[in-house]
Amino acid sequence: VGRRFDTISFLSDLGLRDETVGVVKAIVRDMAPHAHVVDLGHDIASYDVRAGSLALARSIAYVPAGVIIAAVDAGIDNGRPHIAIEVAGGDGVLVGPDNGLLAPAAAMAGGAERAVLLDRDDFHLASAGGSLPVRDVYAPVAAHLCNGVDLAELGTAIDADALLPGVVPLPRDSDDGGVVAEVLWVNQRGDCQLNVGVDDVAPWASADGAKAQVVAGTGDDAVTRVVERVAHAGRLGPGSIGLVVDPAGMLALCLQRRSAAEELCVGAGDQVVLRPLAEGDRGPGVTSSVELRAR
Amino acid sequence: VGRRFDTISFLSDLGLRDETVGVVKAIVRDMAPHAHVVDLGHDIASYDVRAGSLALARSIAYVPAGVIIAAVDAGIDNGRPHIAIEVAGGDGVLVGPDNGLLAPAAAMAGGAERAVLLDRDDFHLASAGGSLPVRDVYAPVAAHLCNGVDLAELGTAIDADALLPGVVPLPRDSDDGGVVAEVLWVNQRGDCQLNVGVDDVAPWASADGAKAQVVAGTGDDAVTRVVERVAHAGRLGPGSIGLVVDPAGMLALCLQRRSAAEELCVGAGDQVVLRPLAEGDRGPGVTSSVELRAR
Amino acid sequence: VGRRFDTISFLSDLGLRDETVGVVKAIVRDMAPHAHVVDLGHDIASYDVRAGSLALARSIAYVPAGVIIAAVDAGIDNGRPHIAIEVAGGDGVLVGPDNGLLAPAAAMAGGAERAVLLDRDDFHLASAGGSLPVRDVYAPVAAHLCNGVDLAELGTAIDADALLPGVVPLPRDSDDGGVVAEVLWVNQRGDCQLNVGVDDVAPWASADGAKAQVVAGTGDDAVTRVVERVAHAGRLGPGSIGLVVDPAGMLALCLQRRSAAEELCVGAGDQVVLRPLAEGDRGPGVTSSVELRAR
Repeated sequence: VGRRFDTISFLSDLGLRDETVGVVKAIVRDMAPHAHVVDLGHDIASYDVRAGSLALARSIAYVPAGVIIAAVDAGIDNGRPHIAIEVAGGDGVLVGPDNGLLAPAAAMAGGAERAVLLDRDDFHLASAGGSLPVRDVYAPVAAHLCNGVDLAELGTAIDADALLPGVVPLPRDSDDGGVVAEVLWVNQRGDCQLNVGVDDVAPWASADGAKAQVVAGTGDDAVTRVVERVAHAGRLGPGSIGLVVDPAGMLALCLQRRSAAEELCVGAGDQVVLRPLAEGDRGPGVTSSVELRAR
Repeated sequence: VGRRFDTISFLSDLGLRDETVGVVKAIVRDMAPHAHVVDLGHDIASYDVRAGSLALARSIAYVPAGVIIAAVDAGIDNGRPHIAIEVAGGDGVLVGPDNGLLAPAAAMAGGAERAVLLDRDDFHLASAGGSLPVRDVYAPVAAHLCNGVDLAELGTAIDADALLPGVVPLPRDSDDGGVVAEVLWVNQRGDCQLNVGVDDVAPWASADGAKAQVVAGTGDDAVTRVVERVAHAGRLGPGSIGLVVDPAGMLALCLQRRSAAEELCVGAGDQVVLRPLAEGDRGPGVTSSVELRAR
Repeated sequence: VGRRFDTISFLSDLGLRDETVGVVKAIVRDMAPHAHVVDLGHDIASYDVRAGSLALARSIAYVPAGVIIAAVDAGIDNGRPHIAIEVAGGDGVLVGPDNGLLAPAAAMAGGAERAVLLDRDDFHLASAGGSLPVRDVYAPVAAHLCNGVDLAELGTAIDADALLPGVVPLPRDSDDGGVVAEVLWVNQRGDCQLNVGVDDVAPWASADGAKAQVVAGTGDDAVTRVVERVAHAGRLGPGSIGLVVDPAGMLALCLQRRSAAEELCVGAGDQVVLRPLAEGDRGPGVTSSVELRAR
């Protein structure tokens, strides 16, 4: 008998427009009444495995010991199975698809220790029609884990090294001494988290009060502005664009009480170049796509 | 004293934009702290009793023993009361309006065994103003049921046969050997569930790989396309429209990683005709509203 | 040692698009596993402290004994601290920013009895980057309160009278015997709650069946219509605008099965004038912005 768990953290792209998330929780309540479900969110865009993997990675340090269900399907039948991965000395088990969704969180939790294919049908629920893995596989498997079923019973052991890795975009240096970054995430307020930390813009934009240039987006739609390093958006002047270290430790673009994503016309996955400000560029923020077209 | 319950499943059209759902759960927490609320979703469109009844019917097989609150008001004062219905040998009690919302789920759970009007005010909460039944009646009644109050104490017994039935649209045969169906539900991904099962399109579109014609919508806006029976949308070619048996056992229109509802310009309640493909129609999917106008 | 609590009610502007709300609940689950979180809603518009304070005030009578986390940040660094306020003889502790958000609810719960600045870092969580008060301060503080830590241990005692008051707009009399009101809140159905009660329109529009004039909005966009006092919207004729006493005890504009906010082109914060109907105005509802421009 394995360790019993009493918390299931749950992230998905299922949305809350219909009853699917509720059905998953109903199954858990029915099969493992002592287990409590913590919703980490269900508004990952359909098929956006990367967005799901990043949200899970941002959450993992705060997730209690227990099972984590993560359900974001790439929408392409790649023949890869459903899996469960044990991490953190057995404190956590990640349940989901083998499409890279679980990989960044598993890595942050110390790496996969044991992994199984979820190929034991007797631990799944039968469907009245087509399969809905989150309902038919992940929910009952998570409930069984909470009830003390050991990972090894749930399916065939697999080599964790054979699992599909996650894709986290890396920044690169630009020709002009800056960094070519990418928007990883736009939060509720419109702040744009980048895939760079404060060290990536040292020393030219690392200190509070420093100014730099940002080119958001590419091509004709690129927007070029001056940004100011500040401790938080509330200290910016109206309309000024700030570069903050966000609560996850990454650099993020922001404005005071306004959406940086709207102001700069960018969203998750879009390119953002940060570079040192040339002499003469320290005036008020200007918008120019001409400069970019000329490159 | 009746049976005690410890789970309340909760479906409504209240949305999550304001605090109403939270207030219902606060009342339950206050009156029956041992009871756990499972949200089956709150994004049923306002006044859409049919959509609510279908969501409840899709959920009911997964709902744990306990109380079910369902709150979708037709928005017309029809003088019909609030009711509670016992189903499944006492394992479940449905609480909600007598407007057909509860009927399909009750039928799927074996039919109403006992039913009462919720006309005992001493089991309700007083309002500071107008009545909000989900807050003033359903929440406290559900809490009392969880605390062991028997159904019979909550109001006047009524004949379950006198309750308003639900409205589930039935498909009909078309003149040309097909079936005139209706979109019951569009899920988060845009898959369009129809009110037909695989038997309704046998033998011409029942087997995997079979092709058929779909006419989605009516009149000038109708879209005519070829659909392919597949096991799931992930196996479709890009842009191809699939006909799958969905996780609830019904036929659904889908695309690979795209919304069938957007592609075909249909939503819940819209007509969809499926019919055998004539010789010569097996080319790539084409859009034509001319054909329909000519009928 | 203070009193232990087992419920945390939680209101915020965090939205459910990302994992932040889930992370707060994960922290609570980890630190105080016995505590149950009741979500009062997370869709307060970013920076809209007034909307948050009103939602909290509407909820407070229904909230169980325990901790209340309220997180709506004005988005401007005003140097005001994070606070906790004890109310209702110790039955409740409100945790949040000192920006007026908590004030109306605290007043409705009998007023602040003790208050502290949350300036004891050892009760907070460290951040990997910038501070996210709801995650780093409010969540762990709420968990500590549930675990029996007394309010006084959490920080420096402050005078409750020094806290920033809430801003609740008051109606005023109009020149023509009516009342100049404001939309406080638009609910899921589009009903527009006003900041006036039935006494404010007595005797000319207080009785069921009475008719009055409404001017919604200001300037060229103002819409003038006849409204009818009814017990609830379901009794209105199609297209007629009703004035009801809503479930919170305030007057609200509504239509049968339609959105009053859309019909009258108003939202929260917009002006609405109610006034007695002149002779000759009792015809069918008419839309006229001319009349307002002439004032």
